Amino acid sequence: MTLPFLSARRSIPLLAAAVMAIPAFAQDDPLPSWNEGAAKAAIVEFVETVTDEGGPGYVPPAERIATFDNDGTLWSEQPMYTQLAFALDRVRELAPEHPEWATTQPFQAVLEGDLEALAAAGDAGLMALVAQTHAGMSSEEFARIVSDWIAAARHPQFDRPYTEMVFQPMLELLDYLRDNDFKTFIVSGGGIDFMRPWTEKTYGIPPEQVVGSSIRTEFQVVDDEPMHMRLGEIDFINDKAGKPVGIDTHIGRRPIAAFGNSAGDREMLLWTAAGNGARLTMLVFHDDAAREYAYGPARGLADSHFGAFPQEFMDEALASGWHVISMKDDWSVVFPAGE
Amino acid sequence: MTLPFLSARRSIPLLAAAVMAIPAFAQDDPLPSWNEGAAKAAIVEFVETVTDEGGPGYVPPAERIATFDNDGTLWSEQPMYTQLAFALDRVRELAPEHPEWATTQPFQAVLEGDLEALAAAGDAGLMALVAQTHAGMSSEEFARIVSDWIAAARHPQFDRPYTEMVFQPMLELLDYLRDNDFKTFIVSGGGIDFMRPWTEKTYGIPPEQVVGSSIRTEFQVVDDEPMHMRLGEIDFINDKAGKPVGIDTHIGRRPIAAFGNSAGDREMLLWTAAGNGARLTMLVFHDDAAREYAYGPARGLADSHFGAFPQEFMDEALASGWHVISMKDDWSVVFPAGE
Repeated sequence: MTLPFLSARRSIPLLAAAVMAIPAFAQDDPLPSWNEGAAKAAIVEFVETVTDEGGPGYVPPAERIATFDNDGTLWSEQPMYTQLAFALDRVRELAPEHPEWATTQPFQAVLEGDLEALAAAGDAGLMALVAQTHAGMSSEEFARIVSDWIAAARHPQFDRPYTEMVFQPMLELLDYLRDNDFKTFIVSGGGIDFMRPWTEKTYGIPPEQVVGSSIRTEFQVVDDEPMHMRLGEIDFINDKAGKPVGIDTHIGRRPIAAFGNSAGDREMLLWTAAGNGARLTMLVFHDDAAREYAYGPARGLADSHFGAFPQEFMDEALASGWHVISMKDDWSVVFPAGE
Repeated sequence: MTLPFLSARRSIPLLAAAVMAIPAFAQDDPLPSWNEGAAKAAIVEFVETVTDEGGPGYVPPAERIATFDNDGTLWSEQPMYTQLAFALDRVRELAPEHPEWATTQPFQAVLEGDLEALAAAGDAGLMALVAQTHAGMSSEEFARIVSDWIAAARHPQFDRPYTEMVFQPMLELLDYLRDNDFKTFIVSGGGIDFMRPWTEKTYGIPPEQVVGSSIRTEFQVVDDEPMHMRLGEIDFINDKAGKPVGIDTHIGRRPIAAFGNSAGDREMLLWTAAGNGARLTMLVFHDDAAREYAYGPARGLADSHFGAFPQEFMDEALASGWHVISMKDDWSVVFPAGE
């Protein structure tokens, strides 16, 4: 009788310790989908530095601004930007009302799935696409169109909603920063009005913290109803050197942390890194063909039409002390489990 | 012995009640500088409606957006917009480096104090002033110039800093709304970069919640230092029909409360009022020559170059159910006590 009793006395505390260690660990680690390594360590060290009241790197909460690129940084951008998939779907949906599109570029290319002809249409073709799919309605109507589309559309290869093509480690990073009184902003080359209808639910980022490219709108009163009419003209391109300008216009202070994944994020990181005090600047590198995609052309990976990361940009990033996140090595999980 | 004892028993509770009534009242009234009346009642009723969880007018905190004009709504705009006083001071300060200004309009008019010649120079003259006083330096340098100026400049008639020419009742209103989980924004025709250096300290409104007119900036790297260079071109005029566009661009959702003081705020109030659910739209009317200024031309008051409030706008406001705040009748205090 004494043996089982002694055994129980020994094993219960051990078992209890083992069981209790799981929630304790989960609670202590704000970034469970990040493997231990330089990237994760840099994030935690930075957050501890800027929140250490009385420490040399302390930053008051009001100045804890973190900016995130969207395509390729918070969600997948392959095989094409999600907003382009939206535009192509819109062309197909509106085609019955536009019989002339069957013989007019770039619409003919879209309808025939001829991506080479689409690319050949260049910027003028892209503007024609934008004018037909993103303008000519009120902003309120456009928000409804986007919301309906994103609720129904599915990624062509992963066959799940685009809002589940977000990166679980980045969701944890957003939460971790906000839990430490950061204000998180999207600063994307994508359309500001394409993102705003779903960023709050998907990322916890409200519309007023979304910065992006825009087309011109005009306030009009139509049949006694005030509205913003979307005109077929580009207002602002929030990419490359446009990103720090968008940050200056919308936020009005310099971020202390910035996250991107391509050469289009270079100036945003440059601007962020050049401030005084602790800074965190990171780039997601897509080197995970097994779980997502692998493209560069840095490190010998294939080039990409979307979110290219050239070798010279890799060299500059590393020389500048910017952290390059390897999706393959730094992330234990890529996508959330889904519904 | 019994009489004093009885007397004490009677008077102590009365005295205690009287003494305790003062802090209790101050604590209960979030708007102590507002006289009891329709304007104050409308504010309190609106806030109680939208915060009443389960009630028919409930609005979730994330959607509690309130927008405030600045000049004439949050601070005085007479005898001229503060930003114009800044520009004129800059011309006088820079004049020694520009001997040609002695004979060039509109600079000659500024240097000679000839406001008629200044007005005659029109929009082209105003643009020349902006280009010389608001552009040609980095945004960071401009913020320093503004900060230095506003710390030293004094209002010509009240002889106190401009940041003490703010309206105490509006400061209480900002606090009251924020205490009820509103996000408060400035939406002003004034320059966004002229306001941002001081709005956080003065109003508790951070730079990212300031919307205003802007000049174009360009991101440049000069001597290895990244900066935003201010170009001498208007980017956006955030006035009249521009205000709802500025709101759409910066905030991305419709306010549920909006506050202005002139015809330049008409479209912002129109846009706000046309949304579904409880709305609060108010206009400050300057009818207090004794404590601040009195100008219209509505209600027979003098016309004004700055913040005009025409009679037809008064008629439209009242017909639309917008609340007109009488500075004379609705405010027991106009300015904060000062330092």
